[in-house]
Amino acid sequence: MEELKRYKDKIDALLFSFLTEEKERAKPTGKYNVQVHSLISDFCLRGGKRIRPILLIEAYKLVGGKDIDEVMKASLSIELLENFLLIHDDIIDRDEIRRGGPSFHKMAEQLTGDNHFGLSTAIIGGDMLSALAIQPILKTNLKNKERAISEFINAELSCFYGELLDMILEKEKDTKEEDFFRMIDLKTASYTTIAPLVIGAILGEANDEQIETLRTYGKLLGQAFQITDDILGVFGDAKRLGKPVDSDIKEGKKTLLIIYALNNTKNEDKNFLKSCLGNSDLTPEDLIKVREILKSSGALTYSKNKAKEIVESAKATLKNNFTNASFLIEIADFIIERSV
Amino acid sequence: MEELKRYKDKIDALLFSFLTEEKERAKPTGKYNVQVHSLISDFCLRGGKRIRPILLIEAYKLVGGKDIDEVMKASLSIELLENFLLIHDDIIDRDEIRRGGPSFHKMAEQLTGDNHFGLSTAIIGGDMLSALAIQPILKTNLKNKERAISEFINAELSCFYGELLDMILEKEKDTKEEDFFRMIDLKTASYTTIAPLVIGAILGEANDEQIETLRTYGKLLGQAFQITDDILGVFGDAKRLGKPVDSDIKEGKKTLLIIYALNNTKNEDKNFLKSCLGNSDLTPEDLIKVREILKSSGALTYSKNKAKEIVESAKATLKNNFTNASFLIEIADFIIERSV
Repeated sequence: MEELKRYKDKIDALLFSFLTEEKERAKPTGKYNVQVHSLISDFCLRGGKRIRPILLIEAYKLVGGKDIDEVMKASLSIELLENFLLIHDDIIDRDEIRRGGPSFHKMAEQLTGDNHFGLSTAIIGGDMLSALAIQPILKTNLKNKERAISEFINAELSCFYGELLDMILEKEKDTKEEDFFRMIDLKTASYTTIAPLVIGAILGEANDEQIETLRTYGKLLGQAFQITDDILGVFGDAKRLGKPVDSDIKEGKKTLLIIYALNNTKNEDKNFLKSCLGNSDLTPEDLIKVREILKSSGALTYSKNKAKEIVESAKATLKNNFTNASFLIEIADFIIERSV
Repeated sequence: MEELKRYKDKIDALLFSFLTEEKERAKPTGKYNVQVHSLISDFCLRGGKRIRPILLIEAYKLVGGKDIDEVMKASLSIELLENFLLIHDDIIDRDEIRRGGPSFHKMAEQLTGDNHFGLSTAIIGGDMLSALAIQPILKTNLKNKERAISEFINAELSCFYGELLDMILEKEKDTKEEDFFRMIDLKTASYTTIAPLVIGAILGEANDEQIETLRTYGKLLGQAFQITDDILGVFGDAKRLGKPVDSDIKEGKKTLLIIYALNNTKNEDKNFLKSCLGNSDLTPEDLIKVREILKSSGALTYSKNKAKEIVESAKATLKNNFTNASFLIEIADFIIERSV
């Protein structure tokens, strides 16, 4: 989608000014604080498709909002939140690569060569972005911002509950498909799709019915997004993804692919899969075999179909309630079509 | 101060209801999330003097605010912030004891026996409190809350800059007294005294002059608080403090005591002190010798006098600008008199 690229450039420019202004404010507090700010800027601007702010802006427009410049500035809140979450999540998942470069705690570790120093800086760096994230919505002159901030906080909390659930599911032996959906509704859909759409609608002075339609669409879109992300996480191209394709398996993530395969394959393959999940010594050969099992068990086809089915349902929700939602409908297709 | 105890009981009751309500909201998201909420409640309610919310309420009253029930609810924001900061800070400082019990990451570790799981849960637990912290101010019906939230975010950011500076000072060989003051202004005074007083004043519809007086008083009070805390951290009673009295030395914290001693003692003692700073194998005998050096070098007397001098200056600021500040003046004395 050509329009996504144009949007991304504008959002990146705003993000750059916002972060540069904050870095200026850090100057009197010390050299290291400025260095950490530079890491934050590098990390935030290194990549990212800016899907979340774009959803916020499009929902605002959809419900009749007119002040595009203003909503674009407010939309930075959700992008800052995403970056905060990535920084802390990479510590939790022990991920060392993000967006084609080192994850934040690895960047911070490189400053001094001290592992705990890197971890500490990343905890604080994430906390800084978390505190900064409220500012763009707080400072906007659009209406209903108190309600928007409330929605923002709820999305954060949902996401934290989802992260905890994700950690627990990694440890559990038997995971059901419903656990997976509960987890991704909390961990992904909450702040990736629901909050941006709902906050955009709130700032655009939508009525409650419009807000609820976007909430439903957002939940479905978020589910399709995560299922697709999980497929790409194993079958995608590491270079394009900007992260290794074996990390989900090494971490023992209970994705829909894995849950389906564990329930629908012969014992020998099931045991092999189990031996790979959470195994940090996974070899490239193991990964190839995991992929084969995910295909032969039908898990790949099942997951792809599930994502498509959910996206169709998401699109129908929009079509039934809005006559002018073509951009958000296109985004839904884009989300499941990216390189699957 | 008898009044502090009455205040504390009321604030604890409000904190308990707030956290219980949040725990209820977590129930549908899964058993582990409720468990983590219980840890959060235990941690927040286990101790703490509630100095920060009390300062907020007293500043509100000082400038003429009348709705005490409402400001008391709003004051929870600053207490939630404190607990969030403690959780993350204990990870960073590798502190295992807090308020007479295990620190949060240790409590979380005990749930599963898994160290990284404890760390991850504590990162997320802190993040949860951080997100929740804005809510009490956001939901109050007092005026000026947008400005109050802005002040709150600035205090958070200052504190993070102070934490980073603290980490850097631990690594640096030569630390000047001015570095110490810059660090504690950011790390401690920002959110311990300045933000509560200024936010209370803002919610009480103070004028700018009143706000600036309280900001100045808060900065001085925060400095005296930290100097006293650092003295107690080495010379206090571990049981009353709820944490070990060797941790600051083991972590290599550059307190005023240490900075003064390093600059004002003979080479032999200086070298011994340096060998103890950041040494996690510090013995009880080493600690006794460290205390002796801190006394013989004059560092203890210097620090105590500095705290007293700053408190006098803080009190004078208040007296010159308010006629009815007796409670805040008493608090200033209380802060440096607690068991030093």
